[in-house]
Amino acid sequence: MSSSFGTLFKVTTFGESHGRGVGAVVDGCPAGLALSPQEIQAQLDRRRPGQSSLTTPRREQDEIEILSGLEEGLTLGTPIALLVYNRNQRPGDYGAMSEIPRPSHADYTYRMKYGRMSRSGGGRASARETLARVAAGAVAEKFLRERFGIEIVAWVSRVGEITAEIDEECVNRELVDREAIRCPEPQAAARMTALVEEVKAARDSIGGIVTCICRQVPAGWGEPVFDKLEAKLAQAMLSLPAARGFAVGSGFAAAAMRGSAHNDPFVAGPDRTLKTSANRSGGIQGGISNGMPIRFEVAFKPAPTIGLPQETVDYDGRPVTLEGKGRHDPCVLPRAVPVVEAMAALVLADLALRQNAARCD
Amino acid sequence: MSSSFGTLFKVTTFGESHGRGVGAVVDGCPAGLALSPQEIQAQLDRRRPGQSSLTTPRREQDEIEILSGLEEGLTLGTPIALLVYNRNQRPGDYGAMSEIPRPSHADYTYRMKYGRMSRSGGGRASARETLARVAAGAVAEKFLRERFGIEIVAWVSRVGEITAEIDEECVNRELVDREAIRCPEPQAAARMTALVEEVKAARDSIGGIVTCICRQVPAGWGEPVFDKLEAKLAQAMLSLPAARGFAVGSGFAAAAMRGSAHNDPFVAGPDRTLKTSANRSGGIQGGISNGMPIRFEVAFKPAPTIGLPQETVDYDGRPVTLEGKGRHDPCVLPRAVPVVEAMAALVLADLALRQNAARCD
Amino acid sequence: MSSSFGTLFKVTTFGESHGRGVGAVVDGCPAGLALSPQEIQAQLDRRRPGQSSLTTPRREQDEIEILSGLEEGLTLGTPIALLVYNRNQRPGDYGAMSEIPRPSHADYTYRMKYGRMSRSGGGRASARETLARVAAGAVAEKFLRERFGIEIVAWVSRVGEITAEIDEECVNRELVDREAIRCPEPQAAARMTALVEEVKAARDSIGGIVTCICRQVPAGWGEPVFDKLEAKLAQAMLSLPAARGFAVGSGFAAAAMRGSAHNDPFVAGPDRTLKTSANRSGGIQGGISNGMPIRFEVAFKPAPTIGLPQETVDYDGRPVTLEGKGRHDPCVLPRAVPVVEAMAALVLADLALRQNAARCD
Amino acid sequence: MSSSFGTLFKVTTFGESHGRGVGAVVDGCPAGLALSPQEIQAQLDRRRPGQSSLTTPRREQDEIEILSGLEEGLTLGTPIALLVYNRNQRPGDYGAMSEIPRPSHADYTYRMKYGRMSRSGGGRASARETLARVAAGAVAEKFLRERFGIEIVAWVSRVGEITAEIDEECVNRELVDREAIRCPEPQAAARMTALVEEVKAARDSIGGIVTCICRQVPAGWGEPVFDKLEAKLAQAMLSLPAARGFAVGSGFAAAAMRGSAHNDPFVAGPDRTLKTSANRSGGIQGGISNGMPIRFEVAFKPAPTIGLPQETVDYDGRPVTLEGKGRHDPCVLPRAVPVVEAMAALVLADLALRQNAARCD
Repeated sequence: MSSSFGTLFKVTTFGESHGRGVGAVVDGCPAGLALSPQEIQAQLDRRRPGQSSLTTPRREQDEIEILSGLEEGLTLGTPIALLVYNRNQRPGDYGAMSEIPRPSHADYTYRMKYGRMSRSGGGRASARETLARVAAGAVAEKFLRERFGIEIVAWVSRVGEITAEIDEECVNRELVDREAIRCPEPQAAARMTALVEEVKAARDSIGGIVTCICRQVPAGWGEPVFDKLEAKLAQAMLSLPAARGFAVGSGFAAAAMRGSAHNDPFVAGPDRTLKTSANRSGGIQGGISNGMPIRFEVAFKPAPTIGLPQETVDYDGRPVTLEGKGRHDPCVLPRAVPVVEAMAALVLADLALRQNAARCD
Repeated sequence: MSSSFGTLFKVTTFGESHGRGVGAVVDGCPAGLALSPQEIQAQLDRRRPGQSSLTTPRREQDEIEILSGLEEGLTLGTPIALLVYNRNQRPGDYGAMSEIPRPSHADYTYRMKYGRMSRSGGGRASARETLARVAAGAVAEKFLRERFGIEIVAWVSRVGEITAEIDEECVNRELVDREAIRCPEPQAAARMTALVEEVKAARDSIGGIVTCICRQVPAGWGEPVFDKLEAKLAQAMLSLPAARGFAVGSGFAAAAMRGSAHNDPFVAGPDRTLKTSANRSGGIQGGISNGMPIRFEVAFKPAPTIGLPQETVDYDGRPVTLEGKGRHDPCVLPRAVPVVEAMAALVLADLALRQNAARCD
Repeated sequence: MSSSFGTLFKVTTFGESHGRGVGAVVDGCPAGLALSPQEIQAQLDRRRPGQSSLTTPRREQDEIEILSGLEEGLTLGTPIALLVYNRNQRPGDYGAMSEIPRPSHADYTYRMKYGRMSRSGGGRASARETLARVAAGAVAEKFLRERFGIEIVAWVSRVGEITAEIDEECVNRELVDREAIRCPEPQAAARMTALVEEVKAARDSIGGIVTCICRQVPAGWGEPVFDKLEAKLAQAMLSLPAARGFAVGSGFAAAAMRGSAHNDPFVAGPDRTLKTSANRSGGIQGGISNGMPIRFEVAFKPAPTIGLPQETVDYDGRPVTLEGKGRHDPCVLPRAVPVVEAMAALVLADLALRQNAARCD
Repeated sequence: MSSSFGTLFKVTTFGESHGRGVGAVVDGCPAGLALSPQEIQAQLDRRRPGQSSLTTPRREQDEIEILSGLEEGLTLGTPIALLVYNRNQRPGDYGAMSEIPRPSHADYTYRMKYGRMSRSGGGRASARETLARVAAGAVAEKFLRERFGIEIVAWVSRVGEITAEIDEECVNRELVDREAIRCPEPQAAARMTALVEEVKAARDSIGGIVTCICRQVPAGWGEPVFDKLEAKLAQAMLSLPAARGFAVGSGFAAAAMRGSAHNDPFVAGPDRTLKTSANRSGGIQGGISNGMPIRFEVAFKPAPTIGLPQETVDYDGRPVTLEGKGRHDPCVLPRAVPVVEAMAALVLADLALRQNAARCD
């Protein structure tokens, strides 16, 4: 297990989907930061199942409790322990499957790794673990916003074959949340919504892409050579359930371009800084932020839990037809939006402290 | 700086492109492994500039020296220090640029981060740093091959718009190295080669994609939740100069798929294990290897150093026309192949030891 | 803050003495280990205040809750979250002191470090934090006992000027716990008890030494050169509140010895191993266990909280007379015994996994 | 192996005593620090064998080479690789012993750990490894001195039964180096010298204590709860060959004291800070520096290599008489002085950066 992330702003998560609770310990958050449970709850509510007809009908209350690290609404500089008790445990839904490894789930690999397997539905591979990341990420985000004015916005830019064209300079969370599908472009959102409902009716699932922008990140963040800003973002995003790809700036499209068309020319910026007239670098050069918006995409596969029957084998290799009964999301993308934001915040908060460390003037 | 990678099989690299040398310390390699300088040199030679007309005409000898950790051809379990002296130092090539941050290079961001800048050509952001990774990766690869029979093969699957269709089950390094472009499909290779020569003549550069397969990786490797196998691969690959994207298994194509088409059904495998009849998961489920081949892609942008004149500004914001004079690669892809293999080996060797640690039977 | 300890068997603690609770997350404990709350509770009860007239009259129930990582009494290999709610919060006892930094407490240094200070009595510097270590250590100890047969026993070997001569080969926890003072030699125990009662009546406090033995530790544990077994033990012990010194084997007495008298000669042991005929090395040579009992001592200063008036200054430098009102221990030694055992277990469990990692046969 | 130390200011050492060389990579040293090989060489010369008749007659030149991280005499912020080639290799001295594990050496434990053993004289357990620490520590010390005015002084305070009374407020390196024994009190120094010469003539060895003071350390350094300042110092010191004990402030004497006598009362200090009128805390309270001098002691056992015959057994358990032939130190203490200073500097530099990190104002 490796349930910790970060060097100085460090989060450790715990909890199985059907155990007593899920939580996180945030160690290294500077002292004196104003923080309330409501700020964390707000992001948890965006991740919560049962928000709309597009997500799983499971209703989880997901009430955050702050167990330590705060006094009179200010952080102490000590570990902030965050806990959400599980209230809606229905392990029975999963019990029938216990002899059959679900295709493209973690059942088989957990069994091969740990020699045994959580009977109760996926354990740490469950999307429920991301709740702890969102809670911890909300702390990181508060720190980044208050000390640096940083703004992080993610949205659903693609579902299946449907892609949205967004004005990326103006997009904000309010626009993103207008649609349950969390695509801020209304026409694409409508088509995406219809597609997800069709997929849901077919007892299937569908993949997509989340795009994320981080604004006002100061130049100089990111630690060459192994903890480059894009490298830590890539790790953070690929650690999410169902994530299959990561791209920064021009991403895979860069493969088809020439240097003369891809390079971002410098122009004069405010206060004797420089800007670039294009941002194909996605705000990062040499692994270090350059002051332009950080921009990246995360591709998610369709959730592996589907209602349709699947031909597979049990742990003994005997052919079986598997039919899902659990209540799951036809499309994880809308709920993935706050999770992507949380992981981006955790990466940036850690690199902020690391860059700060070396400034010994 | 974060020049170390790995938890148990740990590499630390050092050295600037135009300083005295470049090297690595590999700590945590198990004792008793047969290792020779020649095995390391072989991979270094595949990374070396000046191999063909497709790469930079700079000739670097890049002779590896093993300073520690070996006795009578066997590893001692102690740190293996690897050093390559720089022989072909021509800092003058870069001197003229020192007042002008090269577009899409790290000049500006290093200056913003460190408050100063290596006069001598890029320092740690230079591709020369990858030499140390290749040397360390050769040690990791030897360990993986000898103890587990693991085979790692990468190749150029795309240059610009030209994509190669490869028989991925059969591809090996011998096939890859038949063509200087390191694409094992001869017709695509010929077209890629022609394209690179055209780009070179135009004093421009071109991007592409490297695909990598790791065979015979045992099931059970990868540490949920933050050090999932694909998460560490993503970090490793995005830490490479010019890397812009990472995709595992079905990658970005998964975004357009439905679960019923994407799931990999299980079938009986040898020795009471299971296999999957397709491998859209890229050999990884829930962040843990499942015994199928690991498969991933890395997208590289076109190298930012070009001979064509570029309109940009100097550090004071004054417009200048920049004309490159250094000797650089029109296409980094062929030389990126052994670097991708090296980073994959470093990721796998570390996760091998971590998985082994928990087996206390 | 650095609230995590260990590389593979990793514990993260959280919680302030007068906040909502104190707890720990144990990540990296292998799967399949039988574990019950009762086993953890047993060690917590040995650390609990109010056990006897020798300790603080504060009564804390300290009931352990296991929030994750277990199923049907077996560890899953996932993080084990442990929580004890604080029930006996009386911050008022400390409120009066808030403008006066208590001599030899952490009040002043926390304020200098974090720019602010927990109003509620010491925060993370409180001995209550060690509760989380004891809980986590109980998990580590179970692992060590079940997989390797390791036995860890600590006892009070000195209080003030009174030193106990112990038969170290026979000492066990039952013998240690016969006396409230936790010294297994009855005559010394009686004198120590009388001394502590005298000190208590004088509203003062007294220091002492805890000695610890770890039996059946296999040869080969400890990671040269910076994570030598004695180095990690030293870090672990000096991280305890009030610890002032650490000595392994012959300790400070070695300073006065000659090599010819200090060296431990080898003799033949069972199963083609070697033993040593003396154990001045304390079971460790070159930072690695040699199969003999690990033996070390930890010196504790007298607890800084006393009832006697003290002449000091407030935060503004104005002279004040400070009179303590809180309920505190005249001698922390008896309650430090399970804490020392817990930290020893955490060190050994981590080094066990690290040694295991490199055995790739 | 765990050859790295530090979280932000990180050193990785490599090299066996009789291999090609010994060195270190210092990663995380801030940019813009003036640094010259001469500054490093000066401390190496203090550690060098053959300085006087009190140390081993082996003469090692130990010339430092800086391979990376510097340009025009200033650090770049990139890894600083330091290398000393071994010039005086006489593995023959040790060859005869290879079938006999030397008592209280690491021969046996290395063999048990790694399954094999460096034929060539001790490998990483050799005191020669400390050369790399001294080189890295000289970089750390320069950083601490230049940015914070910190001064670190260690000296030999005890050899065998001879203890020196020092005026600790005035002691400096010049005074320490006046005597080859590195005890700044001339009369004690003379007696220590006579004792070492007697021990040398007897082909034996003798232990002792090094005391160290770190002045001008700002209040606020040290990371509760596991990386407390004294905890990291304890790890650093116990990682040194032959170290057996560590004590901070009042140390083991605290065990015999009462709180009323041990507490350090506060008094007003300059610039609205506080000082303490005594320093039994050794400059650390709650794991955090309080602005007073850091003071600690390290006990060293007598070097295990002696000329006197020893009755022991070979690896097969057969009795043998072992007679040493190598050239070794009768007393390691004088040469341990710069090593203790180096490790103190590495601890402080890392905690300086970590404290700095959280200051995001």
